[in-house]
Amino acid sequence: MRDEKCSTSFLHPDRLLPPGPALAIARELYESVADLPIVSPHGHTNPEWFAENKPFTDAAELFLTPDHYVLRMLRSQGLKYDQLGVPRKDGAPVAAPRKAWRLFAANYHLFAATPSRMWIDHALNFAFGFAEPLSAENADVVYDTINARLSDPDLLPRAILDRADVEVIATTEFALDPLEHHARLKQEGLIGRIRTTYRPDDVTDPDAPLFVQNIARLAELTGEDTARWNGLIEAHRKRRAIFRELGAVATDHGVPSAFTADLPKAQKQKLLDDALAGRLDAAGAETFRGQMLTEMAALSVEDGMVMQIHAGSRRNTDSALMRERGANLGADIPARTDFVAGLQPLLSRYGNAENFRLILFTLDESTYARELAPMAGYWPALRIGPPWWFHDSSNGIRRYLDQVVETAGFYNLAGFNDDTRALLSIRARHDLWRREICRFLALLAAEHRLSKQSATEFAVHLSYHAAKDAYRL
Amino acid sequence: MRDEKCSTSFLHPDRLLPPGPALAIARELYESVADLPIVSPHGHTNPEWFAENKPFTDAAELFLTPDHYVLRMLRSQGLKYDQLGVPRKDGAPVAAPRKAWRLFAANYHLFAATPSRMWIDHALNFAFGFAEPLSAENADVVYDTINARLSDPDLLPRAILDRADVEVIATTEFALDPLEHHARLKQEGLIGRIRTTYRPDDVTDPDAPLFVQNIARLAELTGEDTARWNGLIEAHRKRRAIFRELGAVATDHGVPSAFTADLPKAQKQKLLDDALAGRLDAAGAETFRGQMLTEMAALSVEDGMVMQIHAGSRRNTDSALMRERGANLGADIPARTDFVAGLQPLLSRYGNAENFRLILFTLDESTYARELAPMAGYWPALRIGPPWWFHDSSNGIRRYLDQVVETAGFYNLAGFNDDTRALLSIRARHDLWRREICRFLALLAAEHRLSKQSATEFAVHLSYHAAKDAYRL
Amino acid sequence: MRDEKCSTSFLHPDRLLPPGPALAIARELYESVADLPIVSPHGHTNPEWFAENKPFTDAAELFLTPDHYVLRMLRSQGLKYDQLGVPRKDGAPVAAPRKAWRLFAANYHLFAATPSRMWIDHALNFAFGFAEPLSAENADVVYDTINARLSDPDLLPRAILDRADVEVIATTEFALDPLEHHARLKQEGLIGRIRTTYRPDDVTDPDAPLFVQNIARLAELTGEDTARWNGLIEAHRKRRAIFRELGAVATDHGVPSAFTADLPKAQKQKLLDDALAGRLDAAGAETFRGQMLTEMAALSVEDGMVMQIHAGSRRNTDSALMRERGANLGADIPARTDFVAGLQPLLSRYGNAENFRLILFTLDESTYARELAPMAGYWPALRIGPPWWFHDSSNGIRRYLDQVVETAGFYNLAGFNDDTRALLSIRARHDLWRREICRFLALLAAEHRLSKQSATEFAVHLSYHAAKDAYRL
Repeated sequence: MRDEKCSTSFLHPDRLLPPGPALAIARELYESVADLPIVSPHGHTNPEWFAENKPFTDAAELFLTPDHYVLRMLRSQGLKYDQLGVPRKDGAPVAAPRKAWRLFAANYHLFAATPSRMWIDHALNFAFGFAEPLSAENADVVYDTINARLSDPDLLPRAILDRADVEVIATTEFALDPLEHHARLKQEGLIGRIRTTYRPDDVTDPDAPLFVQNIARLAELTGEDTARWNGLIEAHRKRRAIFRELGAVATDHGVPSAFTADLPKAQKQKLLDDALAGRLDAAGAETFRGQMLTEMAALSVEDGMVMQIHAGSRRNTDSALMRERGANLGADIPARTDFVAGLQPLLSRYGNAENFRLILFTLDESTYARELAPMAGYWPALRIGPPWWFHDSSNGIRRYLDQVVETAGFYNLAGFNDDTRALLSIRARHDLWRREICRFLALLAAEHRLSKQSATEFAVHLSYHAAKDAYRL
Repeated sequence: MRDEKCSTSFLHPDRLLPPGPALAIARELYESVADLPIVSPHGHTNPEWFAENKPFTDAAELFLTPDHYVLRMLRSQGLKYDQLGVPRKDGAPVAAPRKAWRLFAANYHLFAATPSRMWIDHALNFAFGFAEPLSAENADVVYDTINARLSDPDLLPRAILDRADVEVIATTEFALDPLEHHARLKQEGLIGRIRTTYRPDDVTDPDAPLFVQNIARLAELTGEDTARWNGLIEAHRKRRAIFRELGAVATDHGVPSAFTADLPKAQKQKLLDDALAGRLDAAGAETFRGQMLTEMAALSVEDGMVMQIHAGSRRNTDSALMRERGANLGADIPARTDFVAGLQPLLSRYGNAENFRLILFTLDESTYARELAPMAGYWPALRIGPPWWFHDSSNGIRRYLDQVVETAGFYNLAGFNDDTRALLSIRARHDLWRREICRFLALLAAEHRLSKQSATEFAVHLSYHAAKDAYRL
Repeated sequence: MRDEKCSTSFLHPDRLLPPGPALAIARELYESVADLPIVSPHGHTNPEWFAENKPFTDAAELFLTPDHYVLRMLRSQGLKYDQLGVPRKDGAPVAAPRKAWRLFAANYHLFAATPSRMWIDHALNFAFGFAEPLSAENADVVYDTINARLSDPDLLPRAILDRADVEVIATTEFALDPLEHHARLKQEGLIGRIRTTYRPDDVTDPDAPLFVQNIARLAELTGEDTARWNGLIEAHRKRRAIFRELGAVATDHGVPSAFTADLPKAQKQKLLDDALAGRLDAAGAETFRGQMLTEMAALSVEDGMVMQIHAGSRRNTDSALMRERGANLGADIPARTDFVAGLQPLLSRYGNAENFRLILFTLDESTYARELAPMAGYWPALRIGPPWWFHDSSNGIRRYLDQVVETAGFYNLAGFNDDTRALLSIRARHDLWRREICRFLALLAAEHRLSKQSATEFAVHLSYHAAKDAYRL
């Protein structure tokens, strides 16, 4: 699984490790974690891949069109999504995969010093053995080589999990998802290694597309009267149980802010009435989402599912793109987030509850030292998730560790999760995290802030055990 | 005073100094400051210790139960305050000290890479000569050794000040404090070395417990009509004078935000009327606190006391804890703070006043480069206090120096203050600051941004003189 | 042009480069960029200098009185602007230049570790050959030497541009500026090397002094009815064309926030009516400025001028200073800025427009990773400007590169601009930027995140080409 070829390839074996007096320790630490299995408790891979286990279509489908990190950077430099083969809602033709791939390859220099570059370099080497970076010159060779290999048994989705030594991976599904792929995985005995996650944004966010229909559909699925507050909660309870049967150990909640509410019963029913009648303004919708977070916490206390909150993404800031091609194509931008005031109602109620665990993710790095670390260093329920999205990069991880460890300690961190939609990037992302962890710990050891023995223990902990502990795997 | 035993103990003599090319300079700088006397112009030690000079009770009383940094971390990992021997308001029994100590020792790994760990390691070595860290294995030995030693003359509070070479230390008392311990210290000629600080939050914050009674008590103490604005100010003037007689050179103000006000006379009386009648809403209370800050500035211009503002702590965010055991037990969390808009009224009035000095402390690190450094680099009245609370750590100090020095220079910094409630941590905290100062200056020198001679001068300045200058000692 | 004397002077040739394993690479990178010509697409030098090409008056006029960085620091330590020779509005006498200079020299230690110190050290060496820093001891010698040299041909303004190898420099003029100096430069064939920039704050900000008169004056200058919205826009169109004839490739907008608006036609006229009638409150003035930003974007789409927004300075926070001596003397302090919500209206309209380029500058570093880098990594129109004002320092540049590069890449950065009012600091500031760029790239290379060849290419790009590309020079 290790990058055996790295020393002779463009991937230097010491990459990201600190040059200078801490290098030897860092290398030693990395040796001890590089081959550990992957625990991937949060991400967005497609369960169909694992259920069907069919070959991927082509190199562009694997590396380009589903990767919003890549698409957005190319777009920012004037390339058009039509040229990059990104499908349009109106069905108008876009560039063919090979043409898009060539454009991507010719512009690969745009990714210098970005995490995308590291992930793709690693994946091209790891999965296909390429020993030099993508470029205009080798675009066709790389494209053809990849495509020719895609049907090989070692590149089928399940084989990729094996080669990457993925011990467990969680996908993420909405509350109304039919979960047919996970059902099939269950039949094949693969639930456990592959798991779903309960992400009920489709029925907890009044601003979600088709919210009212979704609430009705939830009623059909569960036999509950979801127009009544109690029925709505009972419906969630039932869906959560079904998700758990398909391996879910966690819920996940994507919210624009960390706002929560804890309203009296009567007001909750009125909120639901207004939501179903389409009468909520922006503040009302925020209150609805905030109350639902508190309800989800209550259910987690009850059923033990670990709760995740991903707060602070302003979604779809380019309405033209949204109209033309839809969501998740690069136009989501971070927002300031206030976790302390926002979570006060939820934590006042459940922050000390015995069975409750809440993992927080932020896109606002100013909250690391000011909010998340002090909060996680107090509340038994809280863990801090790893750097998220734009911050899941070398320097992003360095800023994170710099700002959270001293106040929250190592044991209030939830380890790593790759959060990826790109199957081949999983190993690459974990490898980057592990290297950064080893760098951080080696520097602590070199400054005599930590013994080498402790550094080794924490390297293993943060590379492997912390995630299992945090998600109760 | 230096850690002579360190080189053979678990405290490495080079700890925190930068490995690599700057190490030699850093060592040399540290040599020049390690033995300087301690100036501790702001903190929360108990004046009774110095007045009575009696032995401490046991190891838990010394290191565990009064240290909210330690308690909160243990709690965050699921340990109960009952198990840790934290007293309850209802008087129900909690764990005995030895049992609590064992739990603390068995969980000492939770503090890896935190400042608490550094402070406690240092104190155990400095005061008791332990040569290895606390652990489950040595818990009882350490506990018994400490307890056996507590009556020794060199571990009485005043002797600890001597051993730590504390030249001057300030405690912090509320406006209504009887100051009997300081009175006794005065009789013994110890005022000067030990000083009080005027912290009138009890009578400046309408949200303080018993505020109305406090204002009445202030009237009794001073013979002023504190229901009239002029009388209230006159009462402060008198109390400040009494505090100065007991060594106070400074006032201190703990406020949720940096908001200040500068109202016309009539509105001030109305504000006081409303406060005494319990008619203030949240905004009104904020205005009252903000106006009182400006009044305190006016009195500082008059009497020369240095004003300190500690702004931006959201206190008691866990109401269950507050009900059960009270304040200062770990549930205070930082808040975003706007120093520029907040201090505008106060600074417009007194920012250029001849005799005025205001030292600012923040828990919102995003204000270092954006607000505090630019403001302190302009207003003659302003100095920036050292990193506060959660940020008084190695990396916290690094972020602080990184962000304030270039814009504010060295001379607008107030040096260090330890702000501690734990007597044995004083030397440890100053040592950590001095090591970080030497690290910072050595790196500047190694990059040829500062001559070695200047680096040495600033190392001494920031370790010793800056605090004396800032507090006019 | 290089600092040949540096190795024997107080300016160490390796200054700011990273000591340790990356030093050799950093030196090599610096070799490759140190002598590149200067591209200075944004700044505040006085065009009269270049048009008249007359000698400067004295050392104080060159280094002290026009430099608000220097003045503010001296003031913050209790020196009076009267003592420093800063002119008063009431014409009352202030210190003579030599006396002010001596005071400056005697307090030069205040600037240790600040960028001002680096710039002045560099300029004194570069322009006058001084081989030691300014001090109380050499104050008179330095003063007399400078004054004696000021009439030498190599110290006339145009010669300074030559010696500093300035390939192109842009000044900044308000919309109503008569541009007579640029007109003269045009006659002499110097437009192209020297350019103006269209900064219409005088007619786009209702809070600007004499706003209503300015709008009337704009009408006179252009023959348009500026009381009608269409006429106002047409007047801008005409002024922009005239600025372009005098070399302008860019506009610039100094705004308190990044707020923009995109109102329907009728509301725009009402806004203008209210502005001219003095009926706008603070929110109304914000809306006016925000709408004008969107109009300026529309005109940039049309005429291809690059748009710059400098957002987030709270101007003139010391009203006493403002009354006494006016603006730009050190009392401007950064403000929190929300670029995402603020720019939403403008970007929704023009963020994908073919011909549009918008360069953003912030004083709120928390926006680097949270807002600017994600936005610039998506919108084709956006580039991130270099660190601005207080953040244009070594550590400021390090924080900037740390936080923007991984998400925005190198190609969404606008290179460097010195933004200076001090002619002699231009080379010094670019040199500091280049050293920091080389440091950053050398560290990336030493960590194997970038090949040495790529590092060299990006060093040249960010030192020279990026600015030309960004401003379409």
